[in-house]
Amino acid sequence: MCSIASLRSGARPSTAPRAAERGRIVAEFALIAGIAAQAGAMRDDVLLGIGDDAALLQPPCGEVLVACTDTLNAGVHFPPGTAPADIGWKALAVNLSDLAAMGATPRWALLALSLPAADAGFVAALAEGFDALAHIHGVALIGGDTTRGPLALTVTALGSVPRHAALRRAGAQPGDAVLVTGTLGDAAAGLRLLQGLLTASASIAAPLRARLDRPQPRIAAGLALRGIAHACIDLSDGLLADLGHICAASGVGAELEAAALPLSPQLRALLPAAVAQELALTGGDDYELCCCVPPARVDAALRALQEAGSAGCVIGRIVTGEGVRVRGADGHWLTPPARGYEHFV
Amino acid sequence: MCSIASLRSGARPSTAPRAAERGRIVAEFALIAGIAAQAGAMRDDVLLGIGDDAALLQPPCGEVLVACTDTLNAGVHFPPGTAPADIGWKALAVNLSDLAAMGATPRWALLALSLPAADAGFVAALAEGFDALAHIHGVALIGGDTTRGPLALTVTALGSVPRHAALRRAGAQPGDAVLVTGTLGDAAAGLRLLQGLLTASASIAAPLRARLDRPQPRIAAGLALRGIAHACIDLSDGLLADLGHICAASGVGAELEAAALPLSPQLRALLPAAVAQELALTGGDDYELCCCVPPARVDAALRALQEAGSAGCVIGRIVTGEGVRVRGADGHWLTPPARGYEHFV
Repeated sequence: MCSIASLRSGARPSTAPRAAERGRIVAEFALIAGIAAQAGAMRDDVLLGIGDDAALLQPPCGEVLVACTDTLNAGVHFPPGTAPADIGWKALAVNLSDLAAMGATPRWALLALSLPAADAGFVAALAEGFDALAHIHGVALIGGDTTRGPLALTVTALGSVPRHAALRRAGAQPGDAVLVTGTLGDAAAGLRLLQGLLTASASIAAPLRARLDRPQPRIAAGLALRGIAHACIDLSDGLLADLGHICAASGVGAELEAAALPLSPQLRALLPAAVAQELALTGGDDYELCCCVPPARVDAALRALQEAGSAGCVIGRIVTGEGVRVRGADGHWLTPPARGYEHFV
Repeated sequence: MCSIASLRSGARPSTAPRAAERGRIVAEFALIAGIAAQAGAMRDDVLLGIGDDAALLQPPCGEVLVACTDTLNAGVHFPPGTAPADIGWKALAVNLSDLAAMGATPRWALLALSLPAADAGFVAALAEGFDALAHIHGVALIGGDTTRGPLALTVTALGSVPRHAALRRAGAQPGDAVLVTGTLGDAAAGLRLLQGLLTASASIAAPLRARLDRPQPRIAAGLALRGIAHACIDLSDGLLADLGHICAASGVGAELEAAALPLSPQLRALLPAAVAQELALTGGDDYELCCCVPPARVDAALRALQEAGSAGCVIGRIVTGEGVRVRGADGHWLTPPARGYEHFV
């Protein structure tokens, strides 16, 4: 037996606050909830959005649903001091990039946000970044959860694609050309600038930092590759690691030409070619697409990507066998220095 | 300019390990991924499950999609020392409970798991608990993310419901009876037993701890209430708080009878009636359903719940006005002692 008072403080495994502070914090929480409820685009296919136990959504007739989830943890996926607006942007971007790799049209997102303390200013900035990207791609925020805990964001992105149009990792065939969109290695250079491992003038540093902080999911490129590419993946962990996933799923190998790797003018100005190429091969966080296209369709793929606003570039080819190897400018095979990012290392 | 070696260690904002340890940890990570890929039920509507950038799902014709997400953080939503199998079960249960409150049929789930270190045994146990509940309700695990970070689980649950059959928080009308399923306050007592604030014999403690550790989402009850209930919510934060959400969304008030609150034999044996009633009103984590039913349909609701395996119980009624108040056994209104669990308090 025990008194009511002694019971109450144990209502959950949390510490009970003083009443005055509780009122203030609860009010802030209400504000946070209000901010979150406003994020994202308005969509007619949202029958019931945030505010009930779950959202009600109208999936498109004749299409299949595409679903993925990714977490960003403070200190692991973004360094301390990252601007909250960039964190909000990136949490959505890495998920939309997965939809892009499937050739999907994004529709809805859910956001689970853990915060060490109620901080309305921080959350407002975070929501602003999330919101900016959501509006670009017409994504509605339809659900979420705000909990007390170490800073972390888990986004679930939902989209759709005609059933037989989805791009997958499996399907690459020997002889296919390997294409990538955009330029590679910029985000890795941006991280080293942030960490002070590299220094550069603002005109070089700013675009590289932007690639790290505000990745652009290649939604239009993914749509353009439907019906053309045999296989596709987004470059989150680094080209060698991610193309390795395509090879493993497809039962093939790949040969790349180091000299063909698309490098930005900023990266070329910052680093010697060999180092820039290493970042392009192993640096993560680029969020470009890598796809495999039959030789007869390469021109069509490059045209379609151009029209979608993403320059494409042939960097190698699919071969029988397994694994990814890279040929240097001197014609010798390079030993890949690392295979991209792994968690728990 | 800098050397390749100096660049490599900064590949992400994480600490680079020694090569030998890296190999071991990566192998464990592969094991973890393998375990996760096996969890949940097999479903024909999963066209492509875990292993690509996103899953491909076939939504049911003529139904709407129901989506929700909830996070469990270590030390906030479960106490240190909670069995990993219980953590895995509960992470799915709290989400399925939200689907139940909408009257939805669960279909698919995504799991984002953050772990401080690779621990294959821990993850295997966690997956076992998740899996056990997933199989009961035919839920397929179709996506996920495993990241390094403080222990946390974010589950996104997806289900479906015929478009006009969904239950919502809004819709309660003055005169409606307020019903709850099962018994209330057991999980709150279970937490106090775990914390050592209460002691009891095993025959009393075990069922109460089970209510805390292995909540049963009332899926069948939610389906049974379709077409009968005006409004519905699941009891996660405590009856007063959650019924308060129905009242706010519906623009009504509610009056409850303390003596009518359904209490388990174990809770009655453990605590004086007044304390047990307080736990039933304010204790969270019950994951029963609370619904509002027009008077003419109360018998039908009770029969339907009985057939669904969840005893229903009338505990009060909806009135004009706002807020929830509770009448004690002596006929006087009680001042509710607390309004349930709030984060950031």
